[in-house]
Amino acid sequence: MESKPIQQFYTEDVSHCFGCGYLNDRGHQIQTYWDGKQSVTRFTPDAYYTAIPGYVYGGLIASLIDCHGTGTAAAAMAEKRNLDLATIKAPRFVTASLHVDYKKPTPVGKELTLTGTVREITERKVVVDIELSADTIVCATGAVISVELRDA
Amino acid sequence: MESKPIQQFYTEDVSHCFGCGYLNDRGHQIQTYWDGKQSVTRFTPDAYYTAIPGYVYGGLIASLIDCHGTGTAAAAMAEKRNLDLATIKAPRFVTASLHVDYKKPTPVGKELTLTGTVREITERKVVVDIELSADTIVCATGAVISVELRDA
Repeated sequence: MESKPIQQFYTEDVSHCFGCGYLNDRGHQIQTYWDGKQSVTRFTPDAYYTAIPGYVYGGLIASLIDCHGTGTAAAAMAEKRNLDLATIKAPRFVTASLHVDYKKPTPVGKELTLTGTVREITERKVVVDIELSADTIVCATGAVISVELRDA
Repeated sequence: MESKPIQQFYTEDVSHCFGCGYLNDRGHQIQTYWDGKQSVTRFTPDAYYTAIPGYVYGGLIASLIDCHGTGTAAAAMAEKRNLDLATIKAPRFVTASLHVDYKKPTPVGKELTLTGTVREITERKVVVDIELSADTIVCATGAVISVELRDA
């Protein structure tokens, strides 16, 4: 497992995302760690992120899957290109398509674990499959199609 | 167009949703209006809901589509059942599956308009197609499969 999350290797100008940007003080600042085969994010939602009382808001679940997907895409692409992240910034991906299946209600007050695996990786596109679990029970699954952000 | 949003007809115990619950002080409190053929929600995101600077966070877009989908499902089902919402509470739907295609970057600082149409409605399930636009330009499309919440 990498000792730093991939988001810390983004350039500052693309680090304001509400979901994962370390420069967004109001945001979730999720952190995606990659071990070469799988990515992991852990996140405990605040209690006001509720859907039906007792369960986590589905929009937050979608948000976590979205940003963990682009983070996983960036980490996998950095590895595919053999980038030395000590000296070169990570590529930055954005979401083209997001799919979430809500399998079970996600309980509030728990640390959620998201894992990501790469289904497909091409020159500029990465498809990531994600599982979100609480207490090892899978509550939601998702798929994120990410494309690399072009320079302006 | 109904003069009140469908969310105002939910029972109080299911009105705490971060996306659309009128009892969630921290939430978006989106409002879904239904005219018998189409639903509409209008929402202007705060500036900190950013993705790449200048554009709206995809997780928020997914959240709006999610809640507008369940709201549209509730309104359409109330109509199908000929419920008099002056005396009977609306049914409450939750999301089984959410899909979002991000067609164009969504600009910040604009009022967003979400419209919903019902693709399929059965006894307890409603499939809703949604378009999200800014300045009449469609920036995202979505599909929400909603199922009616059973009584506890």
